[in-house]
Amino acid sequence: MTLPAPLTGVIPPVCTPLTPEGEVDTVSLARLVDHLAGAGVDGLFVLGSTSEAAFLTDRQRTAVVDTVVGQLDGALPVLAGAIDMTTPRVVEHARAALAAGADAVVATAPFYTRVQPQEVARHFRVLAERAQAPVYAYDLPSAVGTKLGADLVLALAAEGVLAGLKDSSPELAGLREVLAGVREGATAPGFAVLTGSELVVDAALLLGAHGVVPGLGNVDPHGYVRLVAACARGDWARARTEQDRLARLFALVDAGDPARMGRGSSAIGGFKTALYLRGWIDHPTTAEPQIPLNEAETERVAKHLAGAGLL
Amino acid sequence: MTLPAPLTGVIPPVCTPLTPEGEVDTVSLARLVDHLAGAGVDGLFVLGSTSEAAFLTDRQRTAVVDTVVGQLDGALPVLAGAIDMTTPRVVEHARAALAAGADAVVATAPFYTRVQPQEVARHFRVLAERAQAPVYAYDLPSAVGTKLGADLVLALAAEGVLAGLKDSSPELAGLREVLAGVREGATAPGFAVLTGSELVVDAALLLGAHGVVPGLGNVDPHGYVRLVAACARGDWARARTEQDRLARLFALVDAGDPARMGRGSSAIGGFKTALYLRGWIDHPTTAEPQIPLNEAETERVAKHLAGAGLL
Amino acid sequence: MTLPAPLTGVIPPVCTPLTPEGEVDTVSLARLVDHLAGAGVDGLFVLGSTSEAAFLTDRQRTAVVDTVVGQLDGALPVLAGAIDMTTPRVVEHARAALAAGADAVVATAPFYTRVQPQEVARHFRVLAERAQAPVYAYDLPSAVGTKLGADLVLALAAEGVLAGLKDSSPELAGLREVLAGVREGATAPGFAVLTGSELVVDAALLLGAHGVVPGLGNVDPHGYVRLVAACARGDWARARTEQDRLARLFALVDAGDPARMGRGSSAIGGFKTALYLRGWIDHPTTAEPQIPLNEAETERVAKHLAGAGLL
Amino acid sequence: MTLPAPLTGVIPPVCTPLTPEGEVDTVSLARLVDHLAGAGVDGLFVLGSTSEAAFLTDRQRTAVVDTVVGQLDGALPVLAGAIDMTTPRVVEHARAALAAGADAVVATAPFYTRVQPQEVARHFRVLAERAQAPVYAYDLPSAVGTKLGADLVLALAAEGVLAGLKDSSPELAGLREVLAGVREGATAPGFAVLTGSELVVDAALLLGAHGVVPGLGNVDPHGYVRLVAACARGDWARARTEQDRLARLFALVDAGDPARMGRGSSAIGGFKTALYLRGWIDHPTTAEPQIPLNEAETERVAKHLAGAGLL
Repeated sequence: MTLPAPLTGVIPPVCTPLTPEGEVDTVSLARLVDHLAGAGVDGLFVLGSTSEAAFLTDRQRTAVVDTVVGQLDGALPVLAGAIDMTTPRVVEHARAALAAGADAVVATAPFYTRVQPQEVARHFRVLAERAQAPVYAYDLPSAVGTKLGADLVLALAAEGVLAGLKDSSPELAGLREVLAGVREGATAPGFAVLTGSELVVDAALLLGAHGVVPGLGNVDPHGYVRLVAACARGDWARARTEQDRLARLFALVDAGDPARMGRGSSAIGGFKTALYLRGWIDHPTTAEPQIPLNEAETERVAKHLAGAGLL
Repeated sequence: MTLPAPLTGVIPPVCTPLTPEGEVDTVSLARLVDHLAGAGVDGLFVLGSTSEAAFLTDRQRTAVVDTVVGQLDGALPVLAGAIDMTTPRVVEHARAALAAGADAVVATAPFYTRVQPQEVARHFRVLAERAQAPVYAYDLPSAVGTKLGADLVLALAAEGVLAGLKDSSPELAGLREVLAGVREGATAPGFAVLTGSELVVDAALLLGAHGVVPGLGNVDPHGYVRLVAACARGDWARARTEQDRLARLFALVDAGDPARMGRGSSAIGGFKTALYLRGWIDHPTTAEPQIPLNEAETERVAKHLAGAGLL
Repeated sequence: MTLPAPLTGVIPPVCTPLTPEGEVDTVSLARLVDHLAGAGVDGLFVLGSTSEAAFLTDRQRTAVVDTVVGQLDGALPVLAGAIDMTTPRVVEHARAALAAGADAVVATAPFYTRVQPQEVARHFRVLAERAQAPVYAYDLPSAVGTKLGADLVLALAAEGVLAGLKDSSPELAGLREVLAGVREGATAPGFAVLTGSELVVDAALLLGAHGVVPGLGNVDPHGYVRLVAACARGDWARARTEQDRLARLFALVDAGDPARMGRGSSAIGGFKTALYLRGWIDHPTTAEPQIPLNEAETERVAKHLAGAGLL
Repeated sequence: MTLPAPLTGVIPPVCTPLTPEGEVDTVSLARLVDHLAGAGVDGLFVLGSTSEAAFLTDRQRTAVVDTVVGQLDGALPVLAGAIDMTTPRVVEHARAALAAGADAVVATAPFYTRVQPQEVARHFRVLAERAQAPVYAYDLPSAVGTKLGADLVLALAAEGVLAGLKDSSPELAGLREVLAGVREGATAPGFAVLTGSELVVDAALLLGAHGVVPGLGNVDPHGYVRLVAACARGDWARARTEQDRLARLFALVDAGDPARMGRGSSAIGGFKTALYLRGWIDHPTTAEPQIPLNEAETERVAKHLAGAGLL
C-alpha cells in the first residue's frame, strides 16, 4: 500500500511471538496482528527492538514480514526495521523486507563501529539510494551509542533522504528542535516524526509529533488509541489520566528480578508474558540468551494487567 | 588443522582488502596472507573488527574465510570472528565460518541489546554447545558496551565453554586477574589469553599473556614477531625499543582529519592505505559508510611508513 | 521570607556577574536582580550551575547570597545551591547560605566519588537534618554522573527530607513518574517539582510541573513569564509559539566556536554576553578556566538577541 | 624539603583516619605516618581520593597536612591533593596546603563542569602560576569524567607547568605514550610519572614509570616496597609473585555487600577496616554518606589480611 505522508497515529512495534523452540510462531503473530488492527491502530512496525529483531536470524526476519504483510493484506501500512551494524548489511535487510512487502524501512545509525555525523549521513544517503523506498531514521541512543542530532535529521529530511524519524531517545528537547524545523518548512513535505516513548506521549504530541510507536501498545493498544485521540482533540486532562494509567501498567517491564536478568530480558519478557496471559499469543518465550520470567515474575505481570483492567 | 592449546605468539587480525566497488578483493587478500605468514606469525584472525567484519555481508564473510583457509592450506591456524548482536545470529555466523574451514570462532558478548553477566554467560554456553568448536571470548568494550569481568571469563574457562580470551579492553588490571587465575589452575588446560593491544604488548606478555592480536601487525608483522621474541627471551630493553618504534608507527591511525571522519574511518583507512603503499594490497578502499583518506592524509601515512623504514 | 509550598512559576538560576579581575560584581548582580524581579519572576535560584557556583570560592558564594538577599529585601524567595562533592562539604555550604539569608538550599547527589542510591539517600537525610531548612534535590546527571531515580525522590519526599526537586535531567519520563506520585499523594504536602529545561517548559507544565528554572530566563525573563502564564491558562498554542521563540533564542549558547572552547564556556559566555549587550551587567567576564567569547562570537550573540527583539 | 626530581618509588595515598564523630583522628594519622615511613616508602600523598579528600571540610584538610608534615618533620616529601571543581577553588586549596607545609600539589582537570583540552590546559597554567610550587596532574577519569591526553600532559610538562603526572586511569597505552615522550626528552628534566594502579605496578615500571601511588600501600607498604625493589633490579619473576600476592589482598576492597553500598564505600571501608584490624588506626570510621562495613564484611577483610600474612 502507499504510505500516508506523514504517517500519524498509533504504530505499535509488534512483538515477535516464538515457539518454545525459538522459531517464529506465525499463528500467534497473525493473531496479534488481528488484535492490534482491531483496536484501531494506524500502522505496524515490525522487526524493531521490541520485536527482538536483534535476536532473529535473516530467515526468521523474512518470516515475520511475510506473515504480517499477508495477514494485513493491505489494511495498514507496515514499517520494517533493518537492524544491523553498517550500511552494506542494513541495505541487505532493507531489500529483503521490501521484497517481502514492507512499505518502508527503519534504520539506526551504524553501531559496533564508532562513527561521526559525516558517516551517519553517508549511511542514510546510501541506504535511501539503494533501498528505493521510504527510509525512517531510528534514534535509539541506548542501543546504538549515538544520538542523531536535530541538525542532521533536518538536513537529511530536506534532501529527501529520510521520510520520517522514530525518536526513541529519552529527551524531548531534540524532538522539539526537529518539530520546530518541520513547522518552519525545513523538511520535505510529508516528513513524519514518531515518538517511541510509552510514557510521555501527551507531551510529545503537544510538541507536534505525528504519531507514537509504543512497545506497551502491544499489550494495551486500545489505551494508546484513546490517548492519541484525546490529544488530537485537545483534551489534555483526559490524555493525562490515560497516560498515567498506561504509565502504571508500564511497570510490568520491571517484573523480572534484576538479580536474575537484565532490563532487556525483563521488558521483553514482561510484554510477551502479558500477551500470553491475555491469550493473544501461545507462548511467552523470548529469544536466547534472554532469561525467561519465572512463576513469581509472571504473577507480577498478571497483577499489573489486572490492575489495568486487562485480565 | 588442530589449534595449539594454548595458542601463542603473533596472530594478526587480517584486514579485508576490498575492490573499489566494495567487493572482497580475494587476490589481494591471498597476497596479504602470504606476507603475514612469511613474516613468521603464528596464526591469523579473520573477520574481527580490524577486518571490517561489521561491514561485510554474509556472502562476503564466507568469501574471506574461504580465501584465507585456501591460501594457508593448513600452514597456520585460523580464528574467525562471528560478530553479531545476539546468540542466534552469532551461532549462524560461527557455523558458516567453521564450515568454510576456520579452526575456532571468536565472539563478543551480545550488543545492541543490554545484557547482564547471567545473559552473557548463557550466550557463550549456547554458542559453544551449538558451534562444537573452540570458542574465544572477544572483550571489546568500546564496541560492545560491556566489559567481560575476570570472574565470568574464568568461570566459563573452567567449564570448558571458552578456549581462550582476546582482550581488547584498554585496561591491564582485568587481564592480570584472568592470568593469575590461569596460573592458579582455575581454567581448563590450554586456555589462551591474547591481548588485542598494539601499544603495550611488552607489558601484557610480562603479565603472562600467551599472544598478541595487533591490528598494526598487518602493516609491520616483522616488528611484532621481533617484539614477541624479545619478550619471550626476557630481553625487556630490546622489547621496549621495538614497542616504542611500533607505537610511533601506530600514529598512522590518526592520519584522517577528525573534522572529516571518525576514528574508525581513520584507523582502518590508515592500515589499508599503509598496506596499499607497501604494495601488499591493490586498493586502499574501506567499506561504506566509512570516509576514505584523501591525498594529504595518504601522505601522512606514507611519512609514518618511511619513518619506520617500511617504505 | 517563608517559602511558598509548593513553589511555583519562574525561578531563574541567576548568573553571577564578575569583574574583569574575577571578583563578584555586586553592583551588576543587584541590577540583574532588579531586572528579573521587575519582569515578574516568582523566585530566584542563586549559586546553581548557571551561576558558576562550581567556580566561586566560598567567600564569593557568600557575597552572592548577601547581595541578592539584600537587594530583594524579602520581595521574592531565594533558593541557594550548596554545590560540592559530599555531605560534610555540602552541609557547610548550606549553613553559610542559610546564614546569609537564603530560604532554602539546593543540593545534588554526591559526585567525584561514586555512590549508589543508599548513599544518596543518606546524603540527603543528613543534609536535611543538619541544615534545618527546606532542601531541594538537584538532578543534573550531566554534571553529577548519577540520575536521581523517581523512587528515591518520592521516598525522600514522603519522609519530609526533600521540599522539592529541580529536575535538570534531559528526559521527561522520570519527571512524569515523580509528578504522578505527587498527584497520588505519595509526597508530603507542598512538595514542588521544578524543571530546569529551557526548551520543553510547555511539555513539563502539561505533565504537572510546578515551575521552571531556565538559565535563559536571565536573558529573557519576560518570555518565560509569558510562557508559564500561557500554560497556566491552558493556551497551549500560544505557549508553543512562545517556547519556539525562546528555543530559537537559546541557540546563543552555541555562539562559542567548538574548536576553541567547550560547551560550558560557550553557554555561560553566551548568557553573560547577552546580559552585557542588553546593558544589564557591566562585564561579560566568565570564571577561569573558561574561555571568553571573542568578537565574532559576541556578534553571533547580538544577532540572536536582535532576532528575538531584545536588542 | 626539596622535592626529588623526578620523584620515584612508593608514595602511598595516605588514608585519613576519622573519629566516630567524623573528625580527623590526628593521633591515628600520626601513627599511620610512622608505619608507612618505617616501611621504607619514598614519600606521602595526602588529600587524594583514597584520603577521602572529597569528604573533608577545608578545616579538616588543613588539619591533615599539618599533622602529616609535623609528624614527618622533613623525613619524606609530602604531596597534597587540591581536589575541587575548578581553577579558583583549586588555587585556594593549593595555597592552604602549601602554607601548611606540603612540598607539591596534585590537581585533577576541572569536573562537574564539562571542559575541553583548551580549558584543561588553561586550568593547569593558572594553577601553576598562582601556586608557585610543583604541580602534579592527577588523571582519574572515573571521578573526573575526562581523560588527560598524553599530548596535553607532554605539552604542559615541556612548558614547565607540570612537575609530574599521577596516572590513575585504567589503561596503560596512554601512560606508555607519556613515558615515551619523557624518554625522547619532550618534557622538562625531572618530570615524574607515577602510576596509581595497585594491580599492574610491575607492568607500569617495565614501561618506565618512576613510582607508584597505591591505595593498598596503606595496608601493606612493605609489599609495595618489595615489589618496586624487585622491578628496579629487573627481577620480574619475583615482582610478579609479589604483585600477584598484593592483587589477591586487594580483593578486600570488595568486602562490602554491593546490595548495601557502592564501590567507594566498600573500597575505603576495606582499607580503613584493614588498618583498624592491624592496629594502625583507632577507628574504621568512613566519612558520610558512605556506608560502614558491618560485622560480616569486617570478617571478610580480616580473612584477606590473614591470607596475606598480615594478621
